[in-house]
Amino acid sequence: MNPLAENNPHRRYNPLKREWVLVSPHRTQRPWQGQVEKPVQPAALTYDPNCYLCPGNTRAGGVRTDKYTSTYVFENDFAALKPDAPQFADDQGNQGLLVAEGESGICRVICFSPRHDLTLAKMSVPEIRAVVDVWAEQYKELGSREDIAYVQVFENRGAMMGASNPHPHGQIWASRSIPNEVVAELAGQRQYLAEHHTCLLCAYREMETRLAERIIASNASFIALVPFWAVWPFEVMVLPTRHVAGLEEMTDAEREDFAAILKSVTSTYDKVFDTPFPYSMGLHPQPFNDEDHPEWHFHAHFYPPLLRSATVRKFMVGFELLGGPQRDITPESAAETLRQAAAR
Amino acid sequence: MNPLAENNPHRRYNPLKREWVLVSPHRTQRPWQGQVEKPVQPAALTYDPNCYLCPGNTRAGGVRTDKYTSTYVFENDFAALKPDAPQFADDQGNQGLLVAEGESGICRVICFSPRHDLTLAKMSVPEIRAVVDVWAEQYKELGSREDIAYVQVFENRGAMMGASNPHPHGQIWASRSIPNEVVAELAGQRQYLAEHHTCLLCAYREMETRLAERIIASNASFIALVPFWAVWPFEVMVLPTRHVAGLEEMTDAEREDFAAILKSVTSTYDKVFDTPFPYSMGLHPQPFNDEDHPEWHFHAHFYPPLLRSATVRKFMVGFELLGGPQRDITPESAAETLRQAAAR
Ligand SMILES: O=P(O)(O)O[C@H]1O[C@H](CO)[C@@H](O)[C@H](O)[C@H]1O
Ligand SMILES: O=P(O)(O)O[C@H]1O[C@H](CO)[C@@H](O)[C@H](O)[C@H]1O
Repeated sequence: MNPLAENNPHRRYNPLKREWVLVSPHRTQRPWQGQVEKPVQPAALTYDPNCYLCPGNTRAGGVRTDKYTSTYVFENDFAALKPDAPQFADDQGNQGLLVAEGESGICRVICFSPRHDLTLAKMSVPEIRAVVDVWAEQYKELGSREDIAYVQVFENRGAMMGASNPHPHGQIWASRSIPNEVVAELAGQRQYLAEHHTCLLCAYREMETRLAERIIASNASFIALVPFWAVWPFEVMVLPTRHVAGLEEMTDAEREDFAAILKSVTSTYDKVFDTPFPYSMGLHPQPFNDEDHPEWHFHAHFYPPLLRSATVRKFMVGFELLGGPQRDITPESAAETLRQAAAR
Repeated sequence: MNPLAENNPHRRYNPLKREWVLVSPHRTQRPWQGQVEKPVQPAALTYDPNCYLCPGNTRAGGVRTDKYTSTYVFENDFAALKPDAPQFADDQGNQGLLVAEGESGICRVICFSPRHDLTLAKMSVPEIRAVVDVWAEQYKELGSREDIAYVQVFENRGAMMGASNPHPHGQIWASRSIPNEVVAELAGQRQYLAEHHTCLLCAYREMETRLAERIIASNASFIALVPFWAVWPFEVMVLPTRHVAGLEEMTDAEREDFAAILKSVTSTYDKVFDTPFPYSMGLHPQPFNDEDHPEWHFHAHFYPPLLRSATVRKFMVGFELLGGPQRDITPESAAETLRQAAAR
C-alpha cells in the first residue's frame, strides 16, 4: 500500500465494475449517535412450527414444504420473475424515454438444512458441500434453458439484510436478461483481457497471493480476500485459484474446497463482533448468452453491513446513493481484523 | 403505459444512468415476516440541550455551534474529505489492479433551522427558500475553487436513512473528482443529446407533462414526478421546467418555486403512512470540470425506503446488490398513492 493512502482520503478503482470508491481512513474517530440495530438473536429452536421452511410445514402460499432431510429446492411462492411472463418490447414511440420490455425468469428458494437453528457458519463442510452441489445443479439446469441468460444464486442472511426468515436458505433468480451488475463485470473483465491479454481475476489473485495483505483465508483451490476496492466495511471476495468460469466446471475437490472456504468466511464473520454476522452473498459465474466468455472468472461476493459493532452498521445513503460509495476503515485494516478474528 | 406492463414482470430502462430496473407488480401480495423498523418518533423539543446542532451547543469535536437564527453552515467535524489531503496517483506498477489516488474536498453541514423539531415538510416556504439560497451560495462558492469538480448537496432524513441527528440539516460533500453517479448521468445525458439533438430531461419533462400519469406536484417553474425508471418504492425526481444546469442560474421566482415544490414533496411523503417519511435526497446540478455541459439539466432526487407502512421498508439487498434493482409497486401506482396522499 502507498503509505499516503493509509491515513488520508483517497479513491480506489474497481476494475471489475469500472467504478471508484472513496476511502476516508481518518474518519473512524467519528462518534455515532445514529440508529442502533436490534442485536441479532440466533434461532434457538431446531424445528419451529411457525417457520414455513421447516420440513413438513405449510407455507404462506398454502403449499406444504416436504419433509426433507438435507437440502430442499422449491419455486418461490412470491416470485419476482415468472417463466410465462409475456414478452413485449416497446417505447411507445416515445423518443427512448419510456423503454420497457417483458422480463421472464424463474425464482427458487434453496433450504440449506432442515435444521432451523443452523447457518452456513455452523454447518459442517460436508453439509455445505451438499449446498454447493445443489447450486451447481441448479445453475446447469436453469442455464440450459433457452429463456435464461443468467442464474443469480444469493443468500440474504439476517433481518438487517432483509431476510424474512432465519431458517438457513438462499435464493436463485434466473432471468432472460443479464442483470446490471453482471453486465458491468462483463465489461470490466472484457476490457482488462483486451488491454492486458490476461484474465483480470487471475492476475488479481496472483498479485494478492504475493502481497498477502488482504487475504483472510485460502486452501488448495480458493482464496478469500477483502478486495482492494471493497465498498462494504468487511466485504469479501472468494476466488478460485484455477481459471474457472461456471459452476459446472468445478471438480470434486474444488467443490469441497469451496464449501470449506465458505465455512471459513462465514464463521470468521461471526467472531468479529461475537454475533451472527448479517450479509448478502452471491455467486457470479459466467452468463449463458450466445457468446463465449474467456474473460469471465467465477467468484463470490459477501456484502456485510456491520461496521463498528454488532448493532452499528454502515448506511449506504446520502452521498453513497447520490455520489458513490464511501468507506471509513481501509480494506487492509478490515482484512487484519478478519484475520485476527479467524485466529481466535 | 403498455397494459402488459401493469401486471407482469418487466424491465424498464433508465436513460439517465443507462441501467435497467426490474419491476414485479404481481408481487405486492407477498406476506412480510421480516424486519419491522422502529416507528419514527418526531422530535418533540424545539431546543434539545444534547443536540450538537441546536444553537449555542457544543459539538462532539468540541467546537461550539453559533446562536444562529435562520440557517447555519459549518465544516463537518468528521469530514470524509479534507481540502489538504495529499495528492498522489499510483498503481505501484501493478497492472491496473491497485489503482488509488489522493482525493481532496470539503464537507460541510447546513442546519436548515434553529428549531430542533422542524423538518423541511413542516417549515414554511420562505424558510425553505432560505435553505435554497444557502445551497446556491455554497454551490457557487465551492464550485469556483480550482480543486473542486463537484458539489454534492444532500440530506439524510430519519434514523432509518443513517441520519445521526433529527435536527433539520443537510450536508455538502464537494470533491476534486466527479462522483460515480454523476459520471453515469453525464454519460447518459450526453448520449441522449448526441442521438436526439435535444436535452434528455427537457424531452422527458415535456412528455411527462403531456401524459400526467407520474406527476405528483407542479408549479410555474418545477414539476415533481415518480420517474418511469424509479428504483425506490416512492422515489421522486424534481425537475425545473426551464433548461437550468446549475443552481446559480435559478431566478428569484424559480428559487421560490423550488422551495414550494420541496415543501410539497416532503409534506406529501409524511401523509402516505402518517409518519415522518425517511429519505435521502440530493441535488444534481452540473459539474465544474473544464468542459461545457449543454447536456446537463438540473434535478433533485428523493430516495425514500418505506414500502408498505411506516415500519416496513424495501431492502436493497441480495438480488439488488448482486444483480440489479427490483421493485414491486409500479411507478404509476406509487404516483397515484402520492397524489391521493397530497389531496388528504
Ligand atoms: O455524516 P453522517 O451524517 O454522520 O453519516 C451519514 O451520512 C454519510 C453520507 O451520506 C454516510 O456516509 C454515513 O454512512 C451516514 O451515516
Ligand atoms: O424474497 P424475499 O427474501 O422475501 O425478499 C428479500 O430478498 C429480495 C431479493 O434480494 C429483495 O428484493 C427483498 O427486498 C428482500 O426483502
